[in-house]
Amino acid sequence: MTPVIQKNNTGMCGNVIVMFTDFGLEGPYIGQVQAVLHQQASGIPVINLFSDLTPFDIQGAACLLPAYAAGFPAATVFLCVVDPGVGGARPGVVVKADGRWYVGPNEGLFAMLARQPGQLECWQLAEPEGVSASFHGRDVFAPVAARLARGAKVPGVPVPVRCLEQADWPDDLFRVVYIDRFGNALTGVRASVLASDVLLEVNGQAVKRARTFSDVVPGAAFWYANANGLVEFAVNRGRADEVLGLQTGTAFKIVPHT
Amino acid sequence: MTPVIQKNNTGMCGNVIVMFTDFGLEGPYIGQVQAVLHQQASGIPVINLFSDLTPFDIQGAACLLPAYAAGFPAATVFLCVVDPGVGGARPGVVVKADGRWYVGPNEGLFAMLARQPGQLECWQLAEPEGVSASFHGRDVFAPVAARLARGAKVPGVPVPVRCLEQADWPDDLFRVVYIDRFGNALTGVRASVLASDVLLEVNGQAVKRARTFSDVVPGAAFWYANANGLVEFAVNRGRADEVLGLQTGTAFKIVPHT
Amino acid sequence: MTPVIQKNNTGMCGNVIVMFTDFGLEGPYIGQVQAVLHQQASGIPVINLFSDLTPFDIQGAACLLPAYAAGFPAATVFLCVVDPGVGGARPGVVVKADGRWYVGPNEGLFAMLARQPGQLECWQLAEPEGVSASFHGRDVFAPVAARLARGAKVPGVPVPVRCLEQADWPDDLFRVVYIDRFGNALTGVRASVLASDVLLEVNGQAVKRARTFSDVVPGAAFWYANANGLVEFAVNRGRADEVLGLQTGTAFKIVPHT
Repeated sequence: MTPVIQKNNTGMCGNVIVMFTDFGLEGPYIGQVQAVLHQQASGIPVINLFSDLTPFDIQGAACLLPAYAAGFPAATVFLCVVDPGVGGARPGVVVKADGRWYVGPNEGLFAMLARQPGQLECWQLAEPEGVSASFHGRDVFAPVAARLARGAKVPGVPVPVRCLEQADWPDDLFRVVYIDRFGNALTGVRASVLASDVLLEVNGQAVKRARTFSDVVPGAAFWYANANGLVEFAVNRGRADEVLGLQTGTAFKIVPHT
Repeated sequence: MTPVIQKNNTGMCGNVIVMFTDFGLEGPYIGQVQAVLHQQASGIPVINLFSDLTPFDIQGAACLLPAYAAGFPAATVFLCVVDPGVGGARPGVVVKADGRWYVGPNEGLFAMLARQPGQLECWQLAEPEGVSASFHGRDVFAPVAARLARGAKVPGVPVPVRCLEQADWPDDLFRVVYIDRFGNALTGVRASVLASDVLLEVNGQAVKRARTFSDVVPGAAFWYANANGLVEFAVNRGRADEVLGLQTGTAFKIVPHT
Repeated sequence: MTPVIQKNNTGMCGNVIVMFTDFGLEGPYIGQVQAVLHQQASGIPVINLFSDLTPFDIQGAACLLPAYAAGFPAATVFLCVVDPGVGGARPGVVVKADGRWYVGPNEGLFAMLARQPGQLECWQLAEPEGVSASFHGRDVFAPVAARLARGAKVPGVPVPVRCLEQADWPDDLFRVVYIDRFGNALTGVRASVLASDVLLEVNGQAVKRARTFSDVVPGAAFWYANANGLVEFAVNRGRADEVLGLQTGTAFKIVPHT
């Protein structure tokens, strides 16, 4: 996989803010956050990378984040919110990983990012005051993302990066974490950790690897290293979710050599 | 609720155009309107605040509008379309309310806005000529929104603000007007008009108020003042639409003290 | 139909990139493509015209393209991807038609565009190297769209325009190609080729023409020339897909005069 974007522009507005949330494109949430960003970081483009992460599935999102952030240039600011505990006591954090910035609630979302090689720093945000109790994405995290994108001083106090850890989470998550509109099933497993002749077993079916869609016959299921380096189940000219009976959360495993 | 955005930037492109429609994000409608806006108000950001208002539900949208517009700075231009009568004789209007601009078909959408305190002015647009009969959002209202955002002269002729009125609509609408992707149910009732110990009865169930999600046990239903000041039914780490059997249009009432 | 946009602005960023894809607004695809465009064509607005074209339905999309591109000014760049054969041998092309630019995989998507009057040129892109096997929209076509929008030299080699042809496709496609959120059914037939008193028969029902929604009684089905000049089935204040039993792919015909 070559990175999507090799380097940053050096213009005044070279930065970009990337949203990685479970807000849904529908409803008023993305728009309200974008309003804050446009207001407080005027002229900096905002990109919706993921707006429909599985609600409440922090662990799945945590696996997607490093895979989908990797192509972005240094200084990109990621506004990350999957936040079942909204309004509760979980602190907000700013993370700087490999030159990119991340901000969001610290309930595990940055745990896999923190296992990547490269420099890692972390700041804890002060408890918010005078904001809504239910929409911290808009009232707490968006203003911080705007600050970071403008190049202003990092808010919060430095904290040890171990606060991001989820010690009991595996490096690779052997379940479906997202199903796209074509029925392709993204997983939390990095394709680079699997040998290319590995069979994957899901719902009692053994699935072989292929390079891409057109390398198998129409209707055939396969797994492949998707364009962001994750294991993905797919069917050429068909729907993997239907053919293989997959849902978000469906587990799978490596078929042992016999 | 503190306002989302306290004041306008003073840069050349400080304005923003906000879309508040039932067009749906899917299909070509939002994109075609945005093309007109980019062309005729080049450089002014466009934000989709609501793109999936309930089709044809003007009264529900009319309750949402002041609640969701309140956080935006003066001079913001709202392009508002919920228009079951498209192609018919209903006139288009421009409304200036509390320093913000609104444009759209006058079938009631601005009725609740017109009841807010603050200065109110209204202009009626000329009957459109030489445009499509079915897509006034693109062909009539977007060009007007672009004009207003550019700071050009208001089109149309001043008319009395009473033309916006819907005399038989209550100030607060005791029904569900929108269900978001989490299953939270937005209503047309301003939380500020209810005492904090009020029980709300919906589908035969009495629902108590809470401050926010994390203040109740997982699975419990509650109502709360959402981040825009409206009464919203929700369930901590669950779906209020399923738990309480809610749909858009579901009515509810205050449980009388006994 | 008057064109949506009469002429281009002449400012530095007058261009616009228009996305016409089946990627879905959900998931990470649109965002990743937009990241490339913002990076490689900084400051040029990106508009999602269609993000949810019917997956794999190239012929339907090919009928929509000229109808929905017609309103855009010269020099607009359309990034067009409906690509069931991703990863296979189908070449990518750049098309210049009537002053507008198009880029995408050549599997028929530009066939109807190529039948329009006006000047037509075509270039074939080199086989991609060092990019993902499954996301050419991001890795191949977006960089080309960015180049074209910047005014850089056209990549690829000139090829005869007949390479775009699909000789066995009719000029007008008598089936439903898209159903919008209101239940309106867009078809692949240009309204201009039908006499205004033509009855259309779909699912055994004869449907009359009307000018627009408000010209028929509530609940009545009709067909009309939609705001982009295509035949569309609709119901005033109702859903044509439900009333007429329509799905994407539903065929219809002209009722012969008796």
